[in-house]
Amino acid sequence: MYSVIIAGGIGKRFWPRSRRERPKQLLDVIGDTTMLQMTYERLKVISDEKKIYIVTSQNMKESILKTMKGFPEKNIICEPSGKNTAPAIGLATTIILNKDPEAVIGVFPADHYISNIAEFKKSVAIGYRFARDHTALVTFGIKPVRPATGYGYIQYDKNVKVVEGSVYKVKTFAEKPNQSTAQRFLESGEFLWNSGMFVWKGINILNAIKHFIPELYSCLHSIGKSIDTAEFDATLKHHWAMIQSISIDYGIMEKAKNVYVVLGNFDWSDVGSWDAVYDLKAKDENGNVLIGDVATLDTQGCYFYSSKNLIAAIGVSNLIVVQSRDSILIVKRGDTERVKELVEMLERDRLTERL
Amino acid sequence: MYSVIIAGGIGKRFWPRSRRERPKQLLDVIGDTTMLQMTYERLKVISDEKKIYIVTSQNMKESILKTMKGFPEKNIICEPSGKNTAPAIGLATTIILNKDPEAVIGVFPADHYISNIAEFKKSVAIGYRFARDHTALVTFGIKPVRPATGYGYIQYDKNVKVVEGSVYKVKTFAEKPNQSTAQRFLESGEFLWNSGMFVWKGINILNAIKHFIPELYSCLHSIGKSIDTAEFDATLKHHWAMIQSISIDYGIMEKAKNVYVVLGNFDWSDVGSWDAVYDLKAKDENGNVLIGDVATLDTQGCYFYSSKNLIAAIGVSNLIVVQSRDSILIVKRGDTERVKELVEMLERDRLTERL
Repeated sequence: MYSVIIAGGIGKRFWPRSRRERPKQLLDVIGDTTMLQMTYERLKVISDEKKIYIVTSQNMKESILKTMKGFPEKNIICEPSGKNTAPAIGLATTIILNKDPEAVIGVFPADHYISNIAEFKKSVAIGYRFARDHTALVTFGIKPVRPATGYGYIQYDKNVKVVEGSVYKVKTFAEKPNQSTAQRFLESGEFLWNSGMFVWKGINILNAIKHFIPELYSCLHSIGKSIDTAEFDATLKHHWAMIQSISIDYGIMEKAKNVYVVLGNFDWSDVGSWDAVYDLKAKDENGNVLIGDVATLDTQGCYFYSSKNLIAAIGVSNLIVVQSRDSILIVKRGDTERVKELVEMLERDRLTERL
Repeated sequence: MYSVIIAGGIGKRFWPRSRRERPKQLLDVIGDTTMLQMTYERLKVISDEKKIYIVTSQNMKESILKTMKGFPEKNIICEPSGKNTAPAIGLATTIILNKDPEAVIGVFPADHYISNIAEFKKSVAIGYRFARDHTALVTFGIKPVRPATGYGYIQYDKNVKVVEGSVYKVKTFAEKPNQSTAQRFLESGEFLWNSGMFVWKGINILNAIKHFIPELYSCLHSIGKSIDTAEFDATLKHHWAMIQSISIDYGIMEKAKNVYVVLGNFDWSDVGSWDAVYDLKAKDENGNVLIGDVATLDTQGCYFYSSKNLIAAIGVSNLIVVQSRDSILIVKRGDTERVKELVEMLERDRLTERL
């Protein structure tokens, strides 16, 4: 199996640690290494190292090579600009099929967290076999353990057991629900969290792109013909400028009929905010996560991260505090979704040196 | 009138802005200039500039001269070490009496805030005249406007009107009360906040020291004889080492019989904590005080001070946040009395480079 790691995120949610040239996938917010490195380590259990590709933007390539010693530069595919997931996946698929027309390709976000690698490996193997043997677009769904409102959901058809207990036909995709809808999803037993991971034969997703996003297919076709020629960079740049931003979910998955889901039993998080980081980290006896130079008195339920300065707290609770470089973020836990809004406010105020 | 500014405070309460070599009196926590400078400006309205002295420690002398351009170096009296207020006042008195045996001397803390200078001037004039004409130790009391637990109190005798409506005989001094006692003090109408300011003839306070702290008097007498000789520094150092730390309140005022109080009508605060600073500052429409580079979303009732970094806050309320040099303090409003405790914890943990 080929693996494509989608590492194009521009990272506003983890400001002030994430910056323009260092988004979440290049941060060690959960483990001791970057999210991207952790993703790569997971995939090495599944794919041959030579068959693992990273799709990213040109300005992140250097940071990636610096943090991932030994990763082959030729396996980094650079988009001229961010165009969301459908073009990124299309480009990687075009390049891989040019080498191996029979390729079965898994697609994995660079910045998700998975704790149970054995179960993950088992699920990917199931998805791989199904995708290899069928004209199928295969997604991975996670059995929800709480009525999360921060995730998209996949509704599957319980009555159409394609592979008993593990592969099902997808009925619909649902956007991030409100609290009561999320509760209903959880109770129905028919909804899974949409993990944003996929596996398919390259030719099958390219055919789906041809059908549902023909303009994108046409560009990819032209780009494909220029591979291994002196014209590649210019062709890519020329066509990429014409491509519309569109997600693979919205562009393909929600419309295609041959979509299946593997029921994943592994612990998964998209680590979408500082709140998610707090939730995933081990707490001390006061429910605090303290990283770096931190001193506290009578402080509970807090996440404090200091890259350099001393953070000293007295009498506070349920705060996320992040000191990085020239900035300090202080957010009430539960409000970290709004970090993006804050960053956009700083952009408007032209405080770009902080971003 | 001579004025002595007591500027020996070592400043833990305003960490991380206050540091060992820069205590509160050398910070601009309230106005645009330092507390010491503000005190000096107030006193220039009352005393001839040449008659204003500062008592401080040797290691603060340079900072004082740097921040108070033009202040005469010879009017800075340096204690070899901090011994609390009684020795500091005794030393300044000894030096002033050596020049002018008839001197009437006002004593003023360097780090208090007074907003109504005209009323302050009026009160000092009343105290000065009374001290000049009587064998009296005169304090200044402030009519309490709330049941403060952070101040000491002076109980005065309403029936002994020494000067109708302005000077009264003192009955007792009371330590910082608990909440219910403070409420009782307020309701009684007999208690005033102890401002820590005094006026007296130099000879009268020296006689009181002779009577109540004879060991201190004996040292001051020896030091006094060495003034204007080559032996002064050595004599001061030698005797100072033997002097016990003791406050003027505990050592003299609470024991002497000839203590009077001027009823001060001016707004006064000892600015004893970051909470006091928040209370004294003008707030914006969200009840926030924002100083330096600060960005907020949905944030109320906070004091944010940044010397250098951007502080960005979302969804928080009633916090004091102070970024200075290599440290960030985050305290719930109402808990800033505990900053001292925190600093002492850092001292124990030997994080002395932060202090």
